[in-house]
Amino acid sequence: MSRQREFFDLASRLIGRSPTFSGILVVCAVGGGSLVVYADSRADPSIPVGQGQVPPKKKVVVLGTGWAGTTFLKNLDSSMYDVHVVSPRNYFAFTPLLPSITCGTVDARSIVEPIRNIIRKKGGGIQFWEAECFKIDPSNKKIYCRATGGTNINGNSEFVVDYDYLVVALGAKANTFNTPGVPEHCHFLKEVEDAQKIRRSIIECFEEASLPNLTDEDRKRKLQFVIVGGGPTGVEFAAELHDFVNKDLVKIYPRARELAKILVVEAGEHILTMFDKRISEFALEKFSRDGIEVKTGYKVVKVTEKSVCMVGKDVGEVDLPYGMAVWSTGIGTRPVILDLMKEVGQGNRRVLATDEWLRVRECDGVYALGDCASISQRRVMEDIGAIFRVADKDKSGTLTVKEIQDVLGDICERYPQVELYLKSKQMKSLVDLLDESAGKVGGETLELNIDQFKKALEHVDFQVKNLPATAQVASQQGAYLARCFNIMDKVEENPEGPLRITGSGRHRFRPFRYKHLGQFAPLGGEQTAAQLPGDWISIGYGSQWLWYSIYASKQVSWRTRVAVVSNWLRRFIFGRDSSCI
Amino acid sequence: MSRQREFFDLASRLIGRSPTFSGILVVCAVGGGSLVVYADSRADPSIPVGQGQVPPKKKVVVLGTGWAGTTFLKNLDSSMYDVHVVSPRNYFAFTPLLPSITCGTVDARSIVEPIRNIIRKKGGGIQFWEAECFKIDPSNKKIYCRATGGTNINGNSEFVVDYDYLVVALGAKANTFNTPGVPEHCHFLKEVEDAQKIRRSIIECFEEASLPNLTDEDRKRKLQFVIVGGGPTGVEFAAELHDFVNKDLVKIYPRARELAKILVVEAGEHILTMFDKRISEFALEKFSRDGIEVKTGYKVVKVTEKSVCMVGKDVGEVDLPYGMAVWSTGIGTRPVILDLMKEVGQGNRRVLATDEWLRVRECDGVYALGDCASISQRRVMEDIGAIFRVADKDKSGTLTVKEIQDVLGDICERYPQVELYLKSKQMKSLVDLLDESAGKVGGETLELNIDQFKKALEHVDFQVKNLPATAQVASQQGAYLARCFNIMDKVEENPEGPLRITGSGRHRFRPFRYKHLGQFAPLGGEQTAAQLPGDWISIGYGSQWLWYSIYASKQVSWRTRVAVVSNWLRRFIFGRDSSCI
Repeated sequence: MSRQREFFDLASRLIGRSPTFSGILVVCAVGGGSLVVYADSRADPSIPVGQGQVPPKKKVVVLGTGWAGTTFLKNLDSSMYDVHVVSPRNYFAFTPLLPSITCGTVDARSIVEPIRNIIRKKGGGIQFWEAECFKIDPSNKKIYCRATGGTNINGNSEFVVDYDYLVVALGAKANTFNTPGVPEHCHFLKEVEDAQKIRRSIIECFEEASLPNLTDEDRKRKLQFVIVGGGPTGVEFAAELHDFVNKDLVKIYPRARELAKILVVEAGEHILTMFDKRISEFALEKFSRDGIEVKTGYKVVKVTEKSVCMVGKDVGEVDLPYGMAVWSTGIGTRPVILDLMKEVGQGNRRVLATDEWLRVRECDGVYALGDCASISQRRVMEDIGAIFRVADKDKSGTLTVKEIQDVLGDICERYPQVELYLKSKQMKSLVDLLDESAGKVGGETLELNIDQFKKALEHVDFQVKNLPATAQVASQQGAYLARCFNIMDKVEENPEGPLRITGSGRHRFRPFRYKHLGQFAPLGGEQTAAQLPGDWISIGYGSQWLWYSIYASKQVSWRTRVAVVSNWLRRFIFGRDSSCI
Repeated sequence: MSRQREFFDLASRLIGRSPTFSGILVVCAVGGGSLVVYADSRADPSIPVGQGQVPPKKKVVVLGTGWAGTTFLKNLDSSMYDVHVVSPRNYFAFTPLLPSITCGTVDARSIVEPIRNIIRKKGGGIQFWEAECFKIDPSNKKIYCRATGGTNINGNSEFVVDYDYLVVALGAKANTFNTPGVPEHCHFLKEVEDAQKIRRSIIECFEEASLPNLTDEDRKRKLQFVIVGGGPTGVEFAAELHDFVNKDLVKIYPRARELAKILVVEAGEHILTMFDKRISEFALEKFSRDGIEVKTGYKVVKVTEKSVCMVGKDVGEVDLPYGMAVWSTGIGTRPVILDLMKEVGQGNRRVLATDEWLRVRECDGVYALGDCASISQRRVMEDIGAIFRVADKDKSGTLTVKEIQDVLGDICERYPQVELYLKSKQMKSLVDLLDESAGKVGGETLELNIDQFKKALEHVDFQVKNLPATAQVASQQGAYLARCFNIMDKVEENPEGPLRITGSGRHRFRPFRYKHLGQFAPLGGEQTAAQLPGDWISIGYGSQWLWYSIYASKQVSWRTRVAVVSNWLRRFIFGRDSSCI
């Protein structure tokens, strides 16, 4: 019995993780590939590293200063590496507050923190170059960059940077799905500049609609705001815009309430599909009370200068005139990433694939994280024979409970879908699953052959899901990778990862594990829907305050924290202002 | 003796005005021209205004939302008129803080106040149209406007507005003196957008100079900041930029101090020529200590993509390479004003001329104020015969002290140069001047004939000076004109202006009188030079605090006041930030 208790203890420790300990529980491991790179990439192998001579630091190049890149940088022990950062933006932006910028609730500069400040706080020693990487050459370990300011004084704006490790955190671009007219006529909401442009555009619409030489029909058209995409960004923007119009602009544009209209167009059947159904329904109800029209089941096929053309299931083409249109339907891959994917044989994929240690397959020393990459989780069924062999220590051809128990931790770590599957079945341990599969309650006497083992695990891989393209994922990946880099020397001798199933020994690092901490959907009128871990749903004023406090605490510096909070205070006291600045 | 005392009292009251009572002491009067307009401009003269029927309100159209236009609007009793405002900017900007925006000390939105907020605070009833007036047709009392947003939905972006009174407060544009290359390569510092562009450009220069593919010479060129014009704007910008570089940017761009250089190019012999010599010398000294190079006596003849080409007196052409150049050499006239000037026979002038009541000559019902206009003060010598006739009540052919005393107030009010002349001669009253002219001390027995009178006053007109193109002048003019409009009904019966010299009766309003309240020149390092009334000079930290408190108190709304002060606090605590947003 004591054995079984031990087994349960281990399994429950692995499965029943408390959400509050996410930082501690991020598990990671990096395999042998990097070891080779490390050996390969000595700056000049012809110079022998003698005693007392310090080997040159490895050169880490970080591409991008978004959530992934910046979190990596903040957490990296930069004294261990020669760190270079290349990004067309010399700042980190707190993107979850972008919708607040569109209406002037928060100032653009309140949510951006110069990367050089972050570097300075780390004690310097990190190079930053404001440039865009336009080509990655993994075989020669070089990247090609172009200065953002256009041609330089010497007429040459391009330069090449070599690397030992490359951290690709380039993010994504807005996805137009090749819909004609979108790049010309629609606003996006990806960058700080986008949000600033939207703000000016909203005011321009109201100013133009106030001019004397218009009919009321013209005015209504000018004040029709169409938002394509019913995801969190589109919905939050719609809610923020509704507040802006109905709380602030009505005071200075007397006919705003009568003339302005906000529409959300969504191709799917619901808005906020990634949230719990209760939230999605609450949002729909609140929007309908607020007069925000939600058109689900409509696919936009074309955008002209004057109208958004969309197709509904039974209604055919519908033309929606607009004064301003915002396109927020998801993310697409940047050209430089597409080129890299072609080069490394991933040309048929949507985003760059990495293994569970964030390493780009077939690319020595290249890591990818954030929105530009996606982890392709190794399937249990691919390795089922190897797993069986590793577990079957006595080579008896059957697995006993003891044998399973011995490798259970490693398997759950290497294949997190096993845990998810057990959770979905409300089982406490793998033994329950094996019991079920063997059709009996075996307890300690259970023994399984390879076919029974395979059968027990055959549905496990359905639990493999791609991580959402959120700031939360990117930032956890950045922190994870920085930790890997920081302990790279230590794990050479004491690997912390799970057993290698297809090789020998252990993985150096634990694989990346995402811990979902919840998600917010601000719905306007000081009401926010929050979906917290453990399917805890909270909707209303309380979660709005939770939203305020979490977003304030998550700010990257005290300057931005003070700025954001004082912007909120300013809004409470004076409202949002309507200057076209 | 009692008579003489009365005389002195009157004169000293007129001359020795305390600067603190400027609001009360603004004197104004509008002549008969407006009366005609009033009668002419009834909305529909075919409808008789019967008893109990309220005559339609006069339509006042205000062009521009700068200092002049906004102060007019704020002070106008808008219930008396049908007020329309047309401006391409839907906000008022506190322009003295523009140099602070160039370096991010203050946020752009902290110094702008939406015009519609100002309108709302006045209880509404004022129409605002965001459009640019491109033609003024004074003979038909119409203005032609174009929406700033380009073509409207209906393809027509133009509209016509008629008026009873037109208040032209369009300001000025930057003056390039037709120097080739200036519009293409130089930044200006007139509008909020200019300041924002300069800020981004400064950061871009530093970012580009940090890129790896540059020689040190290239870097130095990129970080050479050339400011053309040593007036208050150019000098303040140079000082602000120096602080930005040496207090904030050095921390994040390690080689900034070594590589960056600021130069001020001035065509004249001194910088800050409109200030007292002590201030100008102090500025020069401080700049030389700070390493800001001042090149006086150089005229810029051309600006190319890479360098500012200038000509010195003895040195011939000199090429000054630059990373960023700011052009701040004074103001020029806007095209719409030039067109209006041609139409009203002022084609040979530099700016629109108005009389002392801010009325544009030969334009019924058109007023002009601020930087787009200049008051042409009536000369004493033009009217000397008429003045003599008016004063010589007994038609004796000579003026007695009694007679002079009776009209003295009116003359000093109508011709302020008389007062200025007496002040410059350190005389207390006109009688001293007449005494001097008659070559004796006459006291009460003094009598002058026309030739003696003419001779006494012959140098008086040299005191006529154009008012500077400052916010202070524009705002005093706006307040003055609003008061005139507010009391227009009352002064019909009780004119408050001086005696008409060339006509009969009195002027309806007192003429505009500018009260100089002092001027600041911030020189960086928390030091400001202040020239206050009575030639009181103050330089250093004390006047910097005076500057802070005056600029905070002068803010147009509590929102901007709080924003500006909290921006200053933010700068004290966190420094200026360097994101290129």
